[in-house]
Amino acid sequence: MDRLTEKKKGSTEIFKGKIVHLLVDKVGLPNGNEATREVVRHPGAVAIIAVNEQGEMLLVRQYRYPLDKIIYEIPAGKLEPGEHPNDSAIRELEEETGHRCRRMEQVASFYSSPGFSDELLNIYFTDTLTDGSQHLDDDEFLEVYAVGLDEAVQMVRDHRIADAKTVYAVQYLQLKAAKK
Amino acid sequence: MDRLTEKKKGSTEIFKGKIVHLLVDKVGLPNGNEATREVVRHPGAVAIIAVNEQGEMLLVRQYRYPLDKIIYEIPAGKLEPGEHPNDSAIRELEEETGHRCRRMEQVASFYSSPGFSDELLNIYFTDTLTDGSQHLDDDEFLEVYAVGLDEAVQMVRDHRIADAKTVYAVQYLQLKAAKK
Repeated sequence: MDRLTEKKKGSTEIFKGKIVHLLVDKVGLPNGNEATREVVRHPGAVAIIAVNEQGEMLLVRQYRYPLDKIIYEIPAGKLEPGEHPNDSAIRELEEETGHRCRRMEQVASFYSSPGFSDELLNIYFTDTLTDGSQHLDDDEFLEVYAVGLDEAVQMVRDHRIADAKTVYAVQYLQLKAAKK
Repeated sequence: MDRLTEKKKGSTEIFKGKIVHLLVDKVGLPNGNEATREVVRHPGAVAIIAVNEQGEMLLVRQYRYPLDKIIYEIPAGKLEPGEHPNDSAIRELEEETGHRCRRMEQVASFYSSPGFSDELLNIYFTDTLTDGSQHLDDDEFLEVYAVGLDEAVQMVRDHRIADAKTVYAVQYLQLKAAKK
């Protein structure tokens, strides 16, 4: 066994909700002691870096209840059970922004907060947008914007863009621009 | 009221642990309907992009129980109650890597997963490392590595680096290198 690995010794389910599935597990540590680990199981999510014909990125402006704040994010959503991330990305892009696309490619995937959650963010890129139709969930309210890269960089600085996946998206487009 | 904002109507505490504080709130939606919101309250965290004299970034190799995986991350840790993020960053850098530093600056802050959590990641940068002494928590086991930027980019590609803050850090250093 790797000298860093922990071994599960027991698990208690605390809560199973619409998004969050919380477990508290007892683990054996590498040195033989025991500890508890709080784990939020999450179905995973997709997020889409979508660039229009004018070279602007699409952002959705949305109230985020945990923050009690309105922020700008790239279009994103949870994976549905059994859904492939590719299909999820195409679905969420259209649902939130009203755009379909001709091609979409996965450019990254990363864990949002590996200390306590297994949420994996799958990031997609497209610059081949076509028309579709927006259809939001019953409890979803958002506005769609398109912003240029300079404006997006400024929005990161002044914290209108304030979440990991969207900060990643802005850096991704900055690096793409720097390579040209 | 902004036509996106939700209004808290009630709150039930589900669990309060060492890291995770889970609440399920009842909210009023902009259209007058009601919904529930699952919220993981988190004290916030710091993470440090630390570059040594050879221009390599410091990474810690660590088992992450929620993922059942060993991954490489930049040094990081939770805020202690009442602690300023600057102090927390200096403390975590030394505890995890055994390095102090002469100067450190905050370069970003972002929410890891604003759909269900208020965890804010405060990201710091330093390239003025000095010697200190590593002292890990009782239940913390990790190994420290220093890797060049090309290697770090490859580690993102092959998912040895697989978390949001460390992917951010690698892109941050790529953008810094591109501007030189």
